[in-house]
Amino acid sequence: MKPTIDLNADLGESYGAWTMGDDQALLDVVTSANVACGFHGGDPSVMMATVRRCVERGVRIGAHPSFDDRQGFGRRPMPSVVGDELIALLRYQIGALQAVAAGEGGTVAYVKVHGALDNMASVDAGLAATCVEAVRGLGRGLAMSATSGTELLRAASSAGLATISGVYADRGYTAAGQLAPRSQAGAVLHDVGQITDRVLRMLSDGVVTSVDGVDVAVHADTVCVHGDTPGAVRIASSLRAAIEAAGWACGA
Amino acid sequence: MKPTIDLNADLGESYGAWTMGDDQALLDVVTSANVACGFHGGDPSVMMATVRRCVERGVRIGAHPSFDDRQGFGRRPMPSVVGDELIALLRYQIGALQAVAAGEGGTVAYVKVHGALDNMASVDAGLAATCVEAVRGLGRGLAMSATSGTELLRAASSAGLATISGVYADRGYTAAGQLAPRSQAGAVLHDVGQITDRVLRMLSDGVVTSVDGVDVAVHADTVCVHGDTPGAVRIASSLRAAIEAAGWACGA
Amino acid sequence: MKPTIDLNADLGESYGAWTMGDDQALLDVVTSANVACGFHGGDPSVMMATVRRCVERGVRIGAHPSFDDRQGFGRRPMPSVVGDELIALLRYQIGALQAVAAGEGGTVAYVKVHGALDNMASVDAGLAATCVEAVRGLGRGLAMSATSGTELLRAASSAGLATISGVYADRGYTAAGQLAPRSQAGAVLHDVGQITDRVLRMLSDGVVTSVDGVDVAVHADTVCVHGDTPGAVRIASSLRAAIEAAGWACGA
Amino acid sequence: MKPTIDLNADLGESYGAWTMGDDQALLDVVTSANVACGFHGGDPSVMMATVRRCVERGVRIGAHPSFDDRQGFGRRPMPSVVGDELIALLRYQIGALQAVAAGEGGTVAYVKVHGALDNMASVDAGLAATCVEAVRGLGRGLAMSATSGTELLRAASSAGLATISGVYADRGYTAAGQLAPRSQAGAVLHDVGQITDRVLRMLSDGVVTSVDGVDVAVHADTVCVHGDTPGAVRIASSLRAAIEAAGWACGA
Repeated sequence: MKPTIDLNADLGESYGAWTMGDDQALLDVVTSANVACGFHGGDPSVMMATVRRCVERGVRIGAHPSFDDRQGFGRRPMPSVVGDELIALLRYQIGALQAVAAGEGGTVAYVKVHGALDNMASVDAGLAATCVEAVRGLGRGLAMSATSGTELLRAASSAGLATISGVYADRGYTAAGQLAPRSQAGAVLHDVGQITDRVLRMLSDGVVTSVDGVDVAVHADTVCVHGDTPGAVRIASSLRAAIEAAGWACGA
Repeated sequence: MKPTIDLNADLGESYGAWTMGDDQALLDVVTSANVACGFHGGDPSVMMATVRRCVERGVRIGAHPSFDDRQGFGRRPMPSVVGDELIALLRYQIGALQAVAAGEGGTVAYVKVHGALDNMASVDAGLAATCVEAVRGLGRGLAMSATSGTELLRAASSAGLATISGVYADRGYTAAGQLAPRSQAGAVLHDVGQITDRVLRMLSDGVVTSVDGVDVAVHADTVCVHGDTPGAVRIASSLRAAIEAAGWACGA
Repeated sequence: MKPTIDLNADLGESYGAWTMGDDQALLDVVTSANVACGFHGGDPSVMMATVRRCVERGVRIGAHPSFDDRQGFGRRPMPSVVGDELIALLRYQIGALQAVAAGEGGTVAYVKVHGALDNMASVDAGLAATCVEAVRGLGRGLAMSATSGTELLRAASSAGLATISGVYADRGYTAAGQLAPRSQAGAVLHDVGQITDRVLRMLSDGVVTSVDGVDVAVHADTVCVHGDTPGAVRIASSLRAAIEAAGWACGA
Repeated sequence: MKPTIDLNADLGESYGAWTMGDDQALLDVVTSANVACGFHGGDPSVMMATVRRCVERGVRIGAHPSFDDRQGFGRRPMPSVVGDELIALLRYQIGALQAVAAGEGGTVAYVKVHGALDNMASVDAGLAATCVEAVRGLGRGLAMSATSGTELLRAASSAGLATISGVYADRGYTAAGQLAPRSQAGAVLHDVGQITDRVLRMLSDGVVTSVDGVDVAVHADTVCVHGDTPGAVRIASSLRAAIEAAGWACGA
């Protein structure tokens, strides 16, 4: 029996009259969708259309909540948003998606926080614990999806949440196992062969070579791919084919 | 055994730094709270605080969704918002409140649409059917609360939703059984004795005298009171005392 | 000396991380830019970048205000927004652009209302008068740009505002001289030859053949082109070349 | 001839259906109004009503722009909003108020930044310089109003902007001349006698006793009062009477 690996991507980030990414193409590649909840991308109509397609194709649905920052696409840090304010913010978005999904016959299986909040909660144990508390309080079997090796994943695991440990197909890692800042050389990979080799090694051996040249341990329950450019979708599609050719099944 | 009547009011309509109404005082009077869902009033933090208090006091929680119109407090008609766009809009808000409530150990028991949307769906059978479809698709035992005699209540009943038929304590009715426009003489009542007499007659006899002087049939599962002024809270409180003195129990 | 005709298009409709249209390409074609003011498209940063480019290329700047409806791109009617509420809404947006333009060394020369508000004010004399009052009160030599033959253009002219009468290059007209609804056959033209022939006839003879086959009088101070698709920009570019080849100069 | 001192307060912070402060009462006390520009408080209609009253009473109008954070009332730091993004944000809001004021026959005389942005620019020279650049680029004789002794006031002065140096009537100062954090004892004063004595000493001697007990030099072109509670308006009114009794004229 084949080992299974999940492929995830951010979807449903269009907003009103504005389109972002090629969701249709990406839904042929991924097995899990991190669906924007209206605060950095998406709106109720976009969310409904997105979960409808996920249900049709059997793609697992995750909530992708963020700071309340549409203009900044959730990428602007809001350091004062903590505690109950953050918990309410996250539950609001998760619940909104849960209801929209329920209406289409779907279910939200996990939560993956977005953008600046994800970056901050990856390294801040207190913020991570608050995000975990937000999810745990919903008590509906929601898992927490977060990047391998982060405080957020640790906090979720400590709290007894089911966890989904993620790696990035096209991003460089630091020697500490974190994503290299985009400003750094090697932070974003574009060569499909190199991307494929790295991902297969992460899956088989649980290691990735950092931008500093040393091997770093990572654990991959899911591999994050991107779809914000036509090139990105092609890479993701090639990667899936290569993973399957290497003997893995893709699935959530 | 005493007959039981529910008292409801709109709550949680504060927003950020702005306060609206005296929710604390009103929660001592009502047995059901129509909680704003962030689109005309409320925000995630206000919603969390509101449902927490409802849970503490055993007040039934209802979702009070509206058009996406914070500046206009959901009172501005948006006639092009129909069909799937409206369904998504409503489910988004209801789900947001469901999750915030779940986090506080509470449950959303019903939906009552707000403002311009409520006015429009009260007389437009197509819009009413869409609102009902939005609620019905959530399939979690949600009831629809709407004004006695409206298209919205009829549509909910036809669709097999549990219904909560509402009357207004301090509003005048037309001969057709609808709320008289606020611009009309007698549209808003201020005298607590008159309000009490009317409500008791609605409860006992199922009729109310319209602004035109004719009796109109109404069915009251719940009585809507207001709390947006100190005077309103006092009237609501007096009304509850009078209802109980007349032999009714107040409860959801 | 050559006769001169202005070419205008809607620009600056990107928002945050979302791009709309190919503004760079379109700025090589048009001589006037209707710049979104943040309520249906655009945001302060997009507005700054847009007016900066307009100033660099000598493109005339117009304000393109709308209902407060970002998710609906200003296309959703809000019929209760009238009187002082509408005046304040328009002045707010126009002033915002004026200041952003001033910071880049530019000036807002005219106002063209957007979307649903434009459609409504084109046929509603009262709404048209309110829009005109909003602009007139700013008293800075702002002209009103509106579609030829509309109530809005008439109201501006009656009030003594400078007017810019617009025709559409790629839209069909009704026998009454209004834009044919997009649902109607012939409402949107795609053939560059047909578009060019129509525009040249509008410029030379002041008439256009309606979707019903009859000639309708139009007055063109400016021709509106579109840039929301690559094809649209190519058509606009071809049209400009054809207009110039026919002996016209393009300019504001 | 009497020396003159300006009294300023934040006004126009109501939003839609929500009221904040008693603007009517406060307009009888102050000689300058810091008018919210819609991003933390206010909306186009509130702004129009506010400037109309200012014009009627001869109260000087200032723009009170903030981060784009309505829910947080502009009090939540957004540290990534810098450079051109911040300049555009400020100019947008200032211009919006300028146009709304122009429509009422008024003029915006100065800019005072609000909330978290004000706190940050008070101590961060780079951020201060950006705020100053935003105002300076509008080139219409706008002054910068900021707290005495701050980086923001220094930056404005260095750049050749007219400055309005402000002191707070009811706030404690640190030994470094900054406002004491609200969490600190003595940070907010409530005794009208104490407030009056302090203000008169600031006006006469240019010093204030800090929460640490040492005298700190301050320069007062304007005194900031508050109106967010009935008590605050009474204090402000008493203060004005005391200032005038002490031989000062109140005026902008």
